[in-house]
Amino acid sequence: MGKIAVVGAGAWGTALAITAARAGNEVTIRAREPEVVASINEQRENSLFLPGVEIPSNIKAVADFAELDTPDFLLMVAPAQFVRLVAADLSKTLKESVPVVLCSKGIEQSSGKLISDVMAEVMPKNPLVVLSGPSFALEAARGLPTAVTIASKYQKLAQSLAEAIGQPTFRPYLSRDVVGAEIGGAVKNVFAIACGVVAGKQLGENARAALITRSLAEMVRFGESRGADPETMVGLSGLGDLILTCSSPQSRNMSLGMALGEGKDIAEIMKNRKTVAEGYYTSEILYRIATEEKIDMPVAKAVYDLLHGDKKLDDVISELLSRPISKEEMF
Amino acid sequence: MGKIAVVGAGAWGTALAITAARAGNEVTIRAREPEVVASINEQRENSLFLPGVEIPSNIKAVADFAELDTPDFLLMVAPAQFVRLVAADLSKTLKESVPVVLCSKGIEQSSGKLISDVMAEVMPKNPLVVLSGPSFALEAARGLPTAVTIASKYQKLAQSLAEAIGQPTFRPYLSRDVVGAEIGGAVKNVFAIACGVVAGKQLGENARAALITRSLAEMVRFGESRGADPETMVGLSGLGDLILTCSSPQSRNMSLGMALGEGKDIAEIMKNRKTVAEGYYTSEILYRIATEEKIDMPVAKAVYDLLHGDKKLDDVISELLSRPISKEEMF
Repeated sequence: MGKIAVVGAGAWGTALAITAARAGNEVTIRAREPEVVASINEQRENSLFLPGVEIPSNIKAVADFAELDTPDFLLMVAPAQFVRLVAADLSKTLKESVPVVLCSKGIEQSSGKLISDVMAEVMPKNPLVVLSGPSFALEAARGLPTAVTIASKYQKLAQSLAEAIGQPTFRPYLSRDVVGAEIGGAVKNVFAIACGVVAGKQLGENARAALITRSLAEMVRFGESRGADPETMVGLSGLGDLILTCSSPQSRNMSLGMALGEGKDIAEIMKNRKTVAEGYYTSEILYRIATEEKIDMPVAKAVYDLLHGDKKLDDVISELLSRPISKEEMF
Repeated sequence: MGKIAVVGAGAWGTALAITAARAGNEVTIRAREPEVVASINEQRENSLFLPGVEIPSNIKAVADFAELDTPDFLLMVAPAQFVRLVAADLSKTLKESVPVVLCSKGIEQSSGKLISDVMAEVMPKNPLVVLSGPSFALEAARGLPTAVTIASKYQKLAQSLAEAIGQPTFRPYLSRDVVGAEIGGAVKNVFAIACGVVAGKQLGENARAALITRSLAEMVRFGESRGADPETMVGLSGLGDLILTCSSPQSRNMSLGMALGEGKDIAEIMKNRKTVAEGYYTSEILYRIATEEKIDMPVAKAVYDLLHGDKKLDDVISELLSRPISKEEMF
């Protein structure tokens, strides 16, 4: 079988390593923290980021990029905001022929760029693949059925990655649309905050279903502005991920929204949180892009107004509900 | 304000009557059961089908179609399988100029036709509008935010209905795609059964999100075979309704699937049920159409195999999970 390298040993990186190992590959995972390297190699568990799941024997953890050998595929699973730094480091030792599979999604705060664009800047020669879809790490690690989109301009590479890591409980679907496959994961957290508000304010299931649907329309419009194909965004990486994120009240983003919906003040919420929901930052940059480029995104704007615009909850909701009657346009 | 007639005083008919009345219309609702007429007119409550919600004073219930006067719009909310009969009766007294708003969705079991086609046969002269979207009746009746698609070939009519019944907590979006607006409601119950299986078998949230996404792809393919526009089906009436129905474990369809997922036998389940989930019947006719017309609908087929095909749960699931790697195509 093949050789897979994974960069980033958080929950999702570890789950992907386990998935690849389960398909029979030799897997090397690079962790930043020495204690994670030790935990994986010695206790056969990533006790810091994915406790309770056994690490198969065909996974080896390393601390140094130079120890990664030359894999068939390298999975990039560093946190979105760190991908530029990590990729720059990695590029010093990784051969330019190794396909890099981007599994981190987001918008780089400093530049407003998608992470696939960052990768194209930092590692321009390595063929790029994007892997994205609705996937709680713990479920994928435990072998519960998970389906993802694998996108690349190089369809043979996408097919070959799908064959290398695919299995009945991890089903890849193929696409050519690299940017489209990244959009959902990049912006979903903003909409998850909105869904949290609906839940916290007890606005009901009708409102939640409508909100997810209208959020998808905004996601599609934003994606189109980046050259993405709507068909990709109504698939697993877009809609699928959106549904999952908007159904998970325990997630950081939805719970932030729920606190807002319950009437708590944003300053007070932020003061009491150790970790900040990524959607908090994404909403700022998404609002800026949407305003500058005149992309119609009323839900994203409402979230921005709540988080950064100092508007009152009831005003934001009634603004959203009193928009004029319009055509239902998605694309 | 305007005059609205509602035919069918089940939960959704009553909720629509209340919604129209709240927007200021004079509403007449026709109920089949004399006790419902009495309950609405005398107790100001539909205690049989929507208990606990007050009926505003500008709603009057009648037993006879002839008492409906000539409304600006007539909302048809009879159960899908009865629309042909009810419409035939109604057509004896209703003027042909009155626009009929179809709020019932389904596939007629005897003919395999969509209900909008049935309406076109039975009341060919009355201009047709379709109203559909994610809407639990109780939430809409209570004034919780609800958004729907209003579709008609006659856009002025659609706009005028939207203005007549629209309000901040009941937001219509306009479309020209009558068939598209009906598809979601017609087939969603089959996919809700599949979602129930995933929940009952505890396959996880990743599987549920992927299943809803792939179900949407099947819904789109089925809709296209009926001349519907994919854009409509990824909107409120399609995707929105699908999300709502697949998030409602207490619904008849999802709970039927959950019982199957828990390993119960279909014969045994059916024996112990007073009311039958509509998806049980829809799955049979949908499978027949998909097979005859070669529409690729693996999830719908899996539900058919479980309900009517005498296949074992684990076999159906592993068949679904072991399909070859393919392109992610939605449209």
